[in-house]
Amino acid sequence: MAIRLDTAAADFEARFRDLLAMKREVSEDVDQAVRAIVRAVREQGDAALIELSKKFDRVDLDKLGIRISAAEIAAARASVDAETYAALELARDRIRSHHERQRPKDDRYTDALGVELGSKWTAVQSVGLYVPGGTASYPSSVLMNAVPAKVAGVGRIVMVVPSPDGKLNPLVLAAAELAGVDEIYRIGGAQAVAALAYGTETIAPVAKIVGPGNAYVAAAKRQVFGQVGIDMIAGPSEVLVVADAANDPDWIAADLLAQAEHDTAAQSILITDSPELAAEVEKAVERQLATLPRAETARASWRDFGAIILVGDLAESVALADRIAAEHLELAVEDPEPLFAAVTNAGAVFLGRYTPEVIGDYVGGSNHVLPTARSARFSSGLGVLDFMKRTSLLKLGPDQLRALAPAAMTLAKAEGLDAHGRSVGIRLNL
Amino acid sequence: MAIRLDTAAADFEARFRDLLAMKREVSEDVDQAVRAIVRAVREQGDAALIELSKKFDRVDLDKLGIRISAAEIAAARASVDAETYAALELARDRIRSHHERQRPKDDRYTDALGVELGSKWTAVQSVGLYVPGGTASYPSSVLMNAVPAKVAGVGRIVMVVPSPDGKLNPLVLAAAELAGVDEIYRIGGAQAVAALAYGTETIAPVAKIVGPGNAYVAAAKRQVFGQVGIDMIAGPSEVLVVADAANDPDWIAADLLAQAEHDTAAQSILITDSPELAAEVEKAVERQLATLPRAETARASWRDFGAIILVGDLAESVALADRIAAEHLELAVEDPEPLFAAVTNAGAVFLGRYTPEVIGDYVGGSNHVLPTARSARFSSGLGVLDFMKRTSLLKLGPDQLRALAPAAMTLAKAEGLDAHGRSVGIRLNL
Repeated sequence: MAIRLDTAAADFEARFRDLLAMKREVSEDVDQAVRAIVRAVREQGDAALIELSKKFDRVDLDKLGIRISAAEIAAARASVDAETYAALELARDRIRSHHERQRPKDDRYTDALGVELGSKWTAVQSVGLYVPGGTASYPSSVLMNAVPAKVAGVGRIVMVVPSPDGKLNPLVLAAAELAGVDEIYRIGGAQAVAALAYGTETIAPVAKIVGPGNAYVAAAKRQVFGQVGIDMIAGPSEVLVVADAANDPDWIAADLLAQAEHDTAAQSILITDSPELAAEVEKAVERQLATLPRAETARASWRDFGAIILVGDLAESVALADRIAAEHLELAVEDPEPLFAAVTNAGAVFLGRYTPEVIGDYVGGSNHVLPTARSARFSSGLGVLDFMKRTSLLKLGPDQLRALAPAAMTLAKAEGLDAHGRSVGIRLNL
Repeated sequence: MAIRLDTAAADFEARFRDLLAMKREVSEDVDQAVRAIVRAVREQGDAALIELSKKFDRVDLDKLGIRISAAEIAAARASVDAETYAALELARDRIRSHHERQRPKDDRYTDALGVELGSKWTAVQSVGLYVPGGTASYPSSVLMNAVPAKVAGVGRIVMVVPSPDGKLNPLVLAAAELAGVDEIYRIGGAQAVAALAYGTETIAPVAKIVGPGNAYVAAAKRQVFGQVGIDMIAGPSEVLVVADAANDPDWIAADLLAQAEHDTAAQSILITDSPELAAEVEKAVERQLATLPRAETARASWRDFGAIILVGDLAESVALADRIAAEHLELAVEDPEPLFAAVTNAGAVFLGRYTPEVIGDYVGGSNHVLPTARSARFSSGLGVLDFMKRTSLLKLGPDQLRALAPAAMTLAKAEGLDAHGRSVGIRLNL
């Protein structure tokens, strides 16, 4: 039974604040253990990877090799049925087309003084992609991380994926190949992150590490940050569905459960102006749970973190959605455009009744790596820009330097930085 | 005496690696102390700010008020001499013009299937700007942080600046006013960061915190990350100067010292193909140090971290510059364009003999908040995009959903996510 809120209730603001402040993740303190693992990999390289993989994944990399061979990848691809392979290809192509539009343009111009200014964008030279093992080993996530890197022009894309008990998901290898990943290593955990950051005899270090992982992986990414760049630390998934009375409660329930089945810490929230729809959706959720293979997970998520917020008017949902700042926002209303135009904090918005969030997970083309835990207030989903960096340029001749020198020297003096002033003045005999 | 390297020497690669690996910052372990301060501010709000400011800044905020009044700001502005004020205005205007070109464009389009896709950019709703007190209280940095936020459209820009012994730099207040800062509070340290992140009775919380600070401020920013966004953690400043034989050694020496005077941990590196220039620059550095007010700082920086790298051909400097990934790169050569085109890892590039890096510090128009400590390999200088976030959109009708449903359902099945498949199938009776 999800939480029920009503904006008309006297205690709404307090209860809504509680909803926003809900801690959905227990942050395990694994920093010490991770520190030791990172140190071992830095000091012993491959030997540490072999030892730690024996310990944690029960796999002998001495025998299998740290790197996954071209033959293994080809075998994995061959084992994927044609329908699934075609679906991965379609997803890859749509993600690529969409992300190609995100490529930034260089800028160079001359201002009224004759000063040349500009920005040059270049790709990060090498990127490491972490892919979890076991049940969270999603081929779709491989595409969502690797394709934008490829579009950005990253020259070397390295993937790491653990193989617990020697098992690898062939779909993940097939997706990596489809996305253009250059090297794949069968390692995981903090040791894989350390290997990507510092390198070993077998693995050359990368400049940036992306991709989701467990508490150990997240802690390792935080620890190596600075040595390399990292992406955001992803939390459990969320959906906010804004729905008017004219929805089929079963459709909305299915969307809420699609989010809830990910993780017991996932969160599904419905905002509606219809008490009837709210009641029907709750019933439909229960009905659908009865036949859901991952019902246990979904039920716990819905029970602990699910919420239905009743509003007097759907226009109220804009301010609420901006405060919730959901990773995914569905606008299941007759005309979603005004709401879409008004909302500012959301990772991705899905407009209209025929755009379930799940399309965005797989084949919409937009990225499914999105800001969680209200971070859409200040950050964006993964994209091409995450794999590029901007270098600014300035170019002056003697005339331009003469024009700007007085102000620069005045400010240098005001800041007490005499060598700064001299660096300008010496060129003009000032 | 700086380090001397020669790419022709047998031990070059080893010594160059040592140069890259040099630790220039002692990372103070202040995490525990900062944790206590953040907790105090969260629990006691203004009262904690008042108590901690008494303790650390020797200032009574109960009497002065936490917020700096409009009258104080006006008085500060009036106290600034006309020349300096005009220089700040020029800097502000040039920074604004340049950054206006960085405003991203929304994108919305319909693909061949009729699916609507796109990206919408919106400003972060509120931003906090940390400004250090004392000698590192730079009005130029206020402009460099606040103006891009303003250009991005941030609705509320809040500045915090400590006032040790009650002292405030009037230039910093004047710059804040010029940049359009909305609120200024006389608080600093970890307590100011906590107040911005969590809010107090007087200060409403912000969504993102930017700006440089000491070890306590940096640790506090790391701790509140997630609750709010943060910018990069800035390290000590760096310049790499690539110079051919035809340079005036005094100009190059002045540029190296302009960087070195910032901080004993700053780093100035010269790459040249001329042993004569190298020798003359070293002499010029010593000569100029004799008359430099901040000579002690600059001498320590040059002695401990300065370096001169002799190359056989300046074309070698591209690969070295990419590995150094300097915050600032000066190309003091006859034709800087081919080198500029080839280099990929640098925060900002200054082209030609008449573009000293100092122009970029103040009035060039580009941003002086740039990636340090080799992070230009994976990150960019501060810009308008740091104050905005992108929301993706997807919009399908029944026909588009029908076209994409099979692939989405196939992938959902492959990933074992049945509720995902249902969320699509239920809309089409599949």
